[in-house]
Amino acid sequence: MNLSKIKEIYDSPPIDNEINIGGWVRAFRAKKFIELNDGSTIKNIQCVIVDGKIDQDILNEINVGCSLIITGILIKSIGKGQSFEIKVSDIKLIGKSDSEKYPIQPKKHSFEFLREQAHLRIRTSTFSSVMRIRSKLAFSIHEYFNKNGFNYIHTPIITSSDAEGAGEMFKVTTLESKDLAKKSIDHSNDFFGKKTSLTVSGQLEAETYALGLGKVYTFGPTFRAENSNTSRHASEFWMIEPEMAFYDLNDNMDLAESFVKYILNYVLKNCDEDLKFLDQRLFKEESQKPKNKRNDLSLIEKINFTINNKFTRVSYSEAFDILKNSNHNKKKKFEYPIDKWGSDLQSEHERFLVEKHFKAPVIIYDYPSKIKAFYMRLNDDNKTVRAMDVLFPGIGEIIGGSQREERLDILQQRMAENGIDEKELWWYLDLRKYGTAPHSGFGLGFERMVMFCTGMSNIRDVIPYPRTPKNASF
Amino acid sequence: MNLSKIKEIYDSPPIDNEINIGGWVRAFRAKKFIELNDGSTIKNIQCVIVDGKIDQDILNEINVGCSLIITGILIKSIGKGQSFEIKVSDIKLIGKSDSEKYPIQPKKHSFEFLREQAHLRIRTSTFSSVMRIRSKLAFSIHEYFNKNGFNYIHTPIITSSDAEGAGEMFKVTTLESKDLAKKSIDHSNDFFGKKTSLTVSGQLEAETYALGLGKVYTFGPTFRAENSNTSRHASEFWMIEPEMAFYDLNDNMDLAESFVKYILNYVLKNCDEDLKFLDQRLFKEESQKPKNKRNDLSLIEKINFTINNKFTRVSYSEAFDILKNSNHNKKKKFEYPIDKWGSDLQSEHERFLVEKHFKAPVIIYDYPSKIKAFYMRLNDDNKTVRAMDVLFPGIGEIIGGSQREERLDILQQRMAENGIDEKELWWYLDLRKYGTAPHSGFGLGFERMVMFCTGMSNIRDVIPYPRTPKNASF
Repeated sequence: MNLSKIKEIYDSPPIDNEINIGGWVRAFRAKKFIELNDGSTIKNIQCVIVDGKIDQDILNEINVGCSLIITGILIKSIGKGQSFEIKVSDIKLIGKSDSEKYPIQPKKHSFEFLREQAHLRIRTSTFSSVMRIRSKLAFSIHEYFNKNGFNYIHTPIITSSDAEGAGEMFKVTTLESKDLAKKSIDHSNDFFGKKTSLTVSGQLEAETYALGLGKVYTFGPTFRAENSNTSRHASEFWMIEPEMAFYDLNDNMDLAESFVKYILNYVLKNCDEDLKFLDQRLFKEESQKPKNKRNDLSLIEKINFTINNKFTRVSYSEAFDILKNSNHNKKKKFEYPIDKWGSDLQSEHERFLVEKHFKAPVIIYDYPSKIKAFYMRLNDDNKTVRAMDVLFPGIGEIIGGSQREERLDILQQRMAENGIDEKELWWYLDLRKYGTAPHSGFGLGFERMVMFCTGMSNIRDVIPYPRTPKNASF
Repeated sequence: MNLSKIKEIYDSPPIDNEINIGGWVRAFRAKKFIELNDGSTIKNIQCVIVDGKIDQDILNEINVGCSLIITGILIKSIGKGQSFEIKVSDIKLIGKSDSEKYPIQPKKHSFEFLREQAHLRIRTSTFSSVMRIRSKLAFSIHEYFNKNGFNYIHTPIITSSDAEGAGEMFKVTTLESKDLAKKSIDHSNDFFGKKTSLTVSGQLEAETYALGLGKVYTFGPTFRAENSNTSRHASEFWMIEPEMAFYDLNDNMDLAESFVKYILNYVLKNCDEDLKFLDQRLFKEESQKPKNKRNDLSLIEKINFTINNKFTRVSYSEAFDILKNSNHNKKKKFEYPIDKWGSDLQSEHERFLVEKHFKAPVIIYDYPSKIKAFYMRLNDDNKTVRAMDVLFPGIGEIIGGSQREERLDILQQRMAENGIDEKELWWYLDLRKYGTAPHSGFGLGFERMVMFCTGMSNIRDVIPYPRTPKNASF
């Protein structure tokens, strides 16, 4: 089927040539003007029906949601709103759409309603824009790492490890009810011969590959069986985890900054139309809010803010002092007052540092060891670890990472303190026995970055088919 | 840590400059010559120790597997086997390696042994080559689709659909033993409020997105809970599934051919050293076999054969006749003789068509409907469907695809014949009710392609941490 894509037509319009396009009707006015969209761009193309040219029976059947193949000459438009249009010579009605029943009508639908129609919401401007940006963002991530000598690795999704430690896990089994109906389940008959779960992180396996290939990254799904129904958490989400041998924490911070600036630049350059549309959408949404709840920056401004400012690096202790001594804290304006060194920072604190204090993205490093994972490298003060969090405007933490503990004895001690069985992670310890080396890495929740780039405020609206507690539809 | 990568040094050697490199010792000869590798390339760099320059205590501790940071001047080499080497001025011993215990010694290890050491096997030439090619292949796939206007989508991993139909599924649950210890398990208390499994294919969801965005593809993990212990099957593997609206089967075949040629070309251009090494490895392996079991083509020849030949397209019925009437069949040389129209083709038949008959990659289309899935478009003969399989030398089928049934009534009839509940796939049927359109797609098992490009004969050796029945280690 020799069809042109609407994006190609906009990119270089073959004026006065005959073209064929296939797509879906977004609007049909006065039985004369069809707005057709084929998903290649947010823009529709106007198709003008010349009186008498097309059979009236066909025109009577054209509704919003129909699929058509339209043939015609691309001509300069005399009407407002578009610089060219198709003078239609033929229409093939490919798929009808009953306007009484089709759920996606040319009016404003709530996001809640559209989540119930997740198989059709991709035909709206908002969701097609979000998903095109999601795709470009994913590509930019692969391109960045490929250009910079990283190897993409697929760490396992099904894991027998209990020690990843990042959250509650889903069980994976093939046992039948009768096998399960025992007081203690015997996993020796299970598919893998032992208890298995869905991974919460590929980091530990990525470390094994970094200590052979040098620089690696994962980009795959991860899972949390936490019963938390928030707008920021999903049970299934994609994560990017680079891991680099011979990288200390400073190298890690350099990489994180270079990486996010690259992918944001890529989206700015390659998703212009979609970003402008979503920028407008967010502006309208924000104007419904009370003034003190609105974001200072628009969607595109937030992206530019992140690209154009050098990330400020500050230790946890410094950040703690800044927050503690701030007027904001003294006037008790934080929901969680800053009081005792060692407590974790909340999103409100992170945003204060970025948006009010430094007016730049911030990287906080050297966190208290008590609030961070066992594998992070212990500092000589014995109370902080070489962790880092990257903080963005509007959302706070977007990246978390660390230099890893490469010293066998200290790692063993930290595992013991955290109640992690050495037998469980014998292979992880092996890395510290044979040719250990300083190494570092970080994790980026992909959906967090998609939300940042699209201005969508609910994670359910940036994943094609989101999985959340009590919801695994489609 | 300002270190150069060995690949960069080979790409443009900074002769007579001081460089620092970090890596692992692959060999240490005569207490004088260190072969260092950092994973960036298969090539080691030779580091020459000038007498008296380095402390003897350090030299005494250097073994295979140690990690070092070496400083020295890159000089033209007078020795054989390399055109430059490092004249060492300093060595930092970063991580020791006990030569009595380190499992990866500079000798030939069996692949079976190395599977037990999956966390360390990446430090061998074979596995680092395989995994670098795996990474480049993944990138080439994203690049091809990104260049050609496709959107990358993440279809769900956890699914409540039973109807994907491609194989046995793993259950996903958070129920505790006490909930499970009932005659019939009540999934209303389960995490998602119903029975859920790991996906076997993202195709059906990809179709929903193709009918909005036009051209999409998935690249994600899929799962099979089949208890089959073969060298070609894993329980967890990655799949690529493009899906295109307004594509008929011919467009689909065009795309498949263009796609595989692109990615194979990419690997040829970008993995030269690794391919040469694996080509040699395979040659040695093949020469151990009896002559009649050997492949006619070497690894690189097989890739070139696939790139340089136009894919021959032939219907199932034509292919069936060719096979049936072949001398090979008449002389009963097939393990499964070709007899009755309608039976599925075996790998030996596919390879005969590719390697002996057409001497080109082959696409077979219009398969008997009885041996293909319910969603494939029925032909007017009522007994074949618009399916296609792409066949490669050495392995047979590598891609399977079809034009999808876009007609509601026929799809419903096919679902009924296959015992698939319409309620289960209401959203899939919706696509045929509202703006249905011809569309097509195919699936490529990523590991099959990695095996083809690396000459590895066991799928366990092309996945970092393979999952197979009774095995989910690491």
